[in-house]
Amino acid sequence: MSVALANVLETPGLDAYLDAVEERLESAVARYPGRAARAAAGALAGGKRLRPLLVYLASPVGAEPPASVGAAVELVHMATLVHDDLIDQAELRHGRATVWSVHGAKATIATGDYLFARAFAELARTGDVRATGVLAEAAVSLSRGEALQRRQTRDPETSIESYLERCALKTGKLFEAACRLAGGSGPFGLALGIAFQIADDILDCTGDAEDTGKVPGTDLREGTPTLPLILAAREDDVVWRALMGGSLDGALVRVARTSAIRQSRETADGYAQRARLILDGGLYRDELEALTYAVVDRKR
Amino acid sequence: MSVALANVLETPGLDAYLDAVEERLESAVARYPGRAARAAAGALAGGKRLRPLLVYLASPVGAEPPASVGAAVELVHMATLVHDDLIDQAELRHGRATVWSVHGAKATIATGDYLFARAFAELARTGDVRATGVLAEAAVSLSRGEALQRRQTRDPETSIESYLERCALKTGKLFEAACRLAGGSGPFGLALGIAFQIADDILDCTGDAEDTGKVPGTDLREGTPTLPLILAAREDDVVWRALMGGSLDGALVRVARTSAIRQSRETADGYAQRARLILDGGLYRDELEALTYAVVDRKR
Repeated sequence: MSVALANVLETPGLDAYLDAVEERLESAVARYPGRAARAAAGALAGGKRLRPLLVYLASPVGAEPPASVGAAVELVHMATLVHDDLIDQAELRHGRATVWSVHGAKATIATGDYLFARAFAELARTGDVRATGVLAEAAVSLSRGEALQRRQTRDPETSIESYLERCALKTGKLFEAACRLAGGSGPFGLALGIAFQIADDILDCTGDAEDTGKVPGTDLREGTPTLPLILAAREDDVVWRALMGGSLDGALVRVARTSAIRQSRETADGYAQRARLILDGGLYRDELEALTYAVVDRKR
Repeated sequence: MSVALANVLETPGLDAYLDAVEERLESAVARYPGRAARAAAGALAGGKRLRPLLVYLASPVGAEPPASVGAAVELVHMATLVHDDLIDQAELRHGRATVWSVHGAKATIATGDYLFARAFAELARTGDVRATGVLAEAAVSLSRGEALQRRQTRDPETSIESYLERCALKTGKLFEAACRLAGGSGPFGLALGIAFQIADDILDCTGDAEDTGKVPGTDLREGTPTLPLILAAREDDVVWRALMGGSLDGALVRVARTSAIRQSRETADGYAQRARLILDGGLYRDELEALTYAVVDRKR
């Protein structure tokens, strides 16, 4: 954990808020016992709860948002991960076996649907008429991002613009929604989310499985053109071919030898910087600023 | 089409309402062109639009509900079908190739998620604060119904009570939501939905593929213990073994020789009757009554 994030986590009241969110998540998942509940409980474990944290900090006047808002945003995120891990056939998430690898495809589809439906049921508890639209649009964006990713698969010539669009859809829009649902700045959340996603994609090239809880090199293996891979492919034909589905032997090492990682970090920093420029005041201004550093400077 | 349903379809204003719903559905699906939109457009085709019809008729004073309400309910239904057809590996729906059989599993998961998210985005347009909770609870029920069905698979001794619970979760709750979202009677919708589902399960035993647009005997093949199959298995060991995964040869013919179909029709009629007893007034009382006959007396 970075120093920046450690500071953020000491924000007064945050612990209590995250505990309340955790309780809502657990009761949402445990409500109807059965295989789906067990599968969903597995999906619950190990997450960073970054989105509920953002909900808490984004409230401009420190008026604590209902725990249901944090829970709803996290449930949409979880639903997406559960389905994405199935689509990507990912075996590990947060160092644990994924839902599909334990429970199989059928239970995983149903579990994701269940979590998704629970998200909107949670949100309805708040009685906020605007909220459904905000969360639903973010959920639409998530599925569009997934569709875009499939279109870009094994295309090393994916443009940086369309990669960034994918980051916005897959990650930025839910960060944006977290902020807006708390009454905070949507554009801040969007920029923060894009920075976070780029950092995630860098970690997939450079990270240690023990830290990240994922198998490194997943994007390369699956032909997902992330920013570091797109940039590395421009410099090195071996990476280009690996991204097209060719041999993966030594390809990650070749990525490290290009300027791709450094350039990608600069781009992530640029979005973090953009997020900072949007910040104007609010009770948790300093914490949000620290968060912009934390999302790009992390090991998991 | 039954005489009862033909009468219902002549309800003044209904055509215009269903056209408006269709427009919303088409624009929801066409909004972001791409493979998901094409896949979703396929899912859109051929449906009976029974749930939007119910939304229209359930309004107790004939105050036309927003088209977005009918579209939202239908989108949740479609999202579920898209995922269910993948889970069941069903090749045909409404006489057309299913989304997964054309576009594959990955695109199908994403398409279902997209339709689901669009449903809540549509509903948010109405600005009705209570609505999200009603639709989300119905969506939770749908996924619980799917989970229950998997637990009951290949268990010919599934109790009739738990079969009926599955009907309530998989079908009744969304009919109930359609009615409640229109300001009508939830219990009417629930009973109507259960009657509809039992009739559907009878059609899978007795129906003609040309009429139903589905391959008959699907439930038996997949070991889904529906009411006619549970009852037939009690009378005939061949059906019992077929439901357990044994030979299917002649099993459907054996079902027809038992009293199961007749008994199942009686149960369906009982729920339709229960729905009628709940009806008390409202502008479309006669049409809703006709609908209770139509859902159990149909060929598709």
